Amino acid sequence: MTTSLDQPVQDAVETSDVVAQVRAVAERAKVASRALATATRATKDAALRGMADALVAATDEIVAANATDLERGRADGTSAGLLDRLALTPERIVAIADALRELAALPDPVGEVVRGSTLPNGLRMRQVRVPMGVVGMIYEARPNVTVDAAGLALKSGNAVILRGGSAAAASNEVIVGVLSRALVAQRLPGALVQSIDAWGREGAVALMHARGLVDLLVPRGGADLIQTVVRESTVPVVETGVGNVHVYVDETADLAVAIPILLNSKTQRVGVCNAAETLLVHQAVADEFLPVALAMLADEGVTIHGDETTLALAPDEADCVPATDEDWATEYLSLDLAVRVVDSLDEALDHIRTWSSGHTEAIITRDLAASERFVAEVDSAAVMVNASTRFTDGGQLGLGAEIGISTQKLHARGPMGLGELTTTKWIVHGDGHVRP
Amino acid sequence: MTTSLDQPVQDAVETSDVVAQVRAVAERAKVASRALATATRATKDAALRGMADALVAATDEIVAANATDLERGRADGTSAGLLDRLALTPERIVAIADALRELAALPDPVGEVVRGSTLPNGLRMRQVRVPMGVVGMIYEARPNVTVDAAGLALKSGNAVILRGGSAAAASNEVIVGVLSRALVAQRLPGALVQSIDAWGREGAVALMHARGLVDLLVPRGGADLIQTVVRESTVPVVETGVGNVHVYVDETADLAVAIPILLNSKTQRVGVCNAAETLLVHQAVADEFLPVALAMLADEGVTIHGDETTLALAPDEADCVPATDEDWATEYLSLDLAVRVVDSLDEALDHIRTWSSGHTEAIITRDLAASERFVAEVDSAAVMVNASTRFTDGGQLGLGAEIGISTQKLHARGPMGLGELTTTKWIVHGDGHVRP
Repeated sequence: MTTSLDQPVQDAVETSDVVAQVRAVAERAKVASRALATATRATKDAALRGMADALVAATDEIVAANATDLERGRADGTSAGLLDRLALTPERIVAIADALRELAALPDPVGEVVRGSTLPNGLRMRQVRVPMGVVGMIYEARPNVTVDAAGLALKSGNAVILRGGSAAAASNEVIVGVLSRALVAQRLPGALVQSIDAWGREGAVALMHARGLVDLLVPRGGADLIQTVVRESTVPVVETGVGNVHVYVDETADLAVAIPILLNSKTQRVGVCNAAETLLVHQAVADEFLPVALAMLADEGVTIHGDETTLALAPDEADCVPATDEDWATEYLSLDLAVRVVDSLDEALDHIRTWSSGHTEAIITRDLAASERFVAEVDSAAVMVNASTRFTDGGQLGLGAEIGISTQKLHARGPMGLGELTTTKWIVHGDGHVRP
Repeated sequence: MTTSLDQPVQDAVETSDVVAQVRAVAERAKVASRALATATRATKDAALRGMADALVAATDEIVAANATDLERGRADGTSAGLLDRLALTPERIVAIADALRELAALPDPVGEVVRGSTLPNGLRMRQVRVPMGVVGMIYEARPNVTVDAAGLALKSGNAVILRGGSAAAASNEVIVGVLSRALVAQRLPGALVQSIDAWGREGAVALMHARGLVDLLVPRGGADLIQTVVRESTVPVVETGVGNVHVYVDETADLAVAIPILLNSKTQRVGVCNAAETLLVHQAVADEFLPVALAMLADEGVTIHGDETTLALAPDEADCVPATDEDWATEYLSLDLAVRVVDSLDEALDHIRTWSSGHTEAIITRDLAASERFVAEVDSAAVMVNASTRFTDGGQLGLGAEIGISTQKLHARGPMGLGELTTTKWIVHGDGHVRP
């Protein structure tokens, strides 16, 4: 259930036909985005509620299309876990529609005055949030992302161009049609939500090259998909999601705090980017902490990839294998955890500097100086002190909803909410001011 | 006096040797940036003042190196204007050093809390400005940019890697050496300011591909340089500077306001990105406005590229040629101005939508509704109402100093000051919080 984007695209044959058609889609999106840029919040919220109602009304049609995708997935030998993520039921469609209604309840980021002042010469200056214009999204199989992305783009005043995985093609086609018709029913352009799935991989490449038409491209999926989009794109990209996440148990950690945080970070949900992948334990507490922690992880079915000290301390019931450098580098997204005992906070910081993907790291400590060094020196989007790594999430941090977790430093870092789907415009009012 | 980057780089032979050496430079920058990331403002300001003193102390050495560049430029037939921009005199070196001292007086963007709250579950969350890490800068001949970029990067906590134009190679080499030694004298790593000029065009390409080591790359120069960097880079880029800037004189414009703004926008300084390149005039005021405006532009030596109506209204003294579509598209950066008479505000907005580069546009009007439509519908980094386009400038808008004017929507739009050279980090404090 991966997209064909996972192969290198250097040799992609871009037929000029596909390029022209995808550019035509982007042109329509750009024109449509203009109508939305000056729409009021009331108009946008009514459209979101209209989209939600239309999805629920189209439940039978969506479930039938989804059955086709599921059938093809089963025939292709797709794993049960991935089939579950692909599956749409009436209940799930209600939940997806409710997420749109929740978006309608969030404040509108457009129009926010980010900074403003009257300059010494009397010029009135303000920097105001405005929509990006056209946002592209390239993602993998989960069809709920289709709806989420359309809703977030609409609320932030943007047109969206969607390129979903082929595994969900039938579901996405029906969903995009339903959303587009719902927009028209609300007197907004249907071209605010368009799919380019019909043009396959060449279409995706054409989107990555649509300079001047696409203002932001967000890849969401596995590391290969994201790397391909970053390497190939000439339009601006925000990278999302790869999380090689660390939990460090410091020498002064309260072990009664450390164990629940570790378990929550690793096992509350394993296939997500903010789940822990490596545990680092200070040698001063390893003897006390590791036997208990590894036993509890074993209860949850977690396989330990441990260094020598860890393996020596592991209880019998723990499922352990020796760790290699590859383990330190791996985002498992599964019931696996790399574990290393470190001599000091410095060694923990070194390990994180070497192997982290810059998503989220947590320290468990009672020492103020250690927490402050960890916060200052770890160069990641989010740093947790005595809290689970699972809190790196737009909803959990109060942003309301997110289009992804950025692991780059440009434009957005960490959860990308509605505000991160906007840019700003400088507006300057004078009375005939000229520059001396 | 253009860089060799102006040629397409698809065929660039990247010897692995150059790639390895440039990556080694970037690795050193990354290590050096860590020391700076946690430096206090006092340390950074002392370093800026030390750099300023060192530049003035090295005046003879810098002027001598600059003489070599000027001599080669003259031999190559470089124009007088470009030679003037390249030239360094003792007075100019004092001015460049003073700019560093002014940077020291600006607030430190690092540590600013962008947003913060206590979440319903008791988690304390804050989003804090932190340095990018390593900033790359690819630019053309003016050697003052070498100092400006180093100063802005240092103040915002970043290491900088500089790739200047070959025309200023000798000047830049001496300046980078002086700055680097000044940092060491202040007990900061000399690798905070490095040049890769020694590796020529291949070195620049290697920098554009140094993913994971370069956090932000800013090209500053002509349109060809910028397009090459955008097309070729796999590291995050912010585009700067191309300004096809419009002044629109509305039907209700106060012509006594319109003429000074037009003259200032076009002629106060012609070789800069915020200078006006096209004038649009509402047909209702064309008869009254254009003869006077074109006569005054003629006094300043401006050549008019006009549409038919404009040419018919031009006074005898005006130097006029007929405009083609190429004129509407051109950023002259010279004493040339494209002029068109439009039927309506709508036609002006259409023209701007079609031809603008999204930098700055101005409307001269007394009509509130027209000003509000112009502000809402023009999709540019800056929109001026009854003010000169020359105000799109970090210094003029109160940012203090700028590394360039971004014409893209991602990360920074318009003048990029110190804040735009930072990213943010989410810091979350809990008391054993786990996600339910």
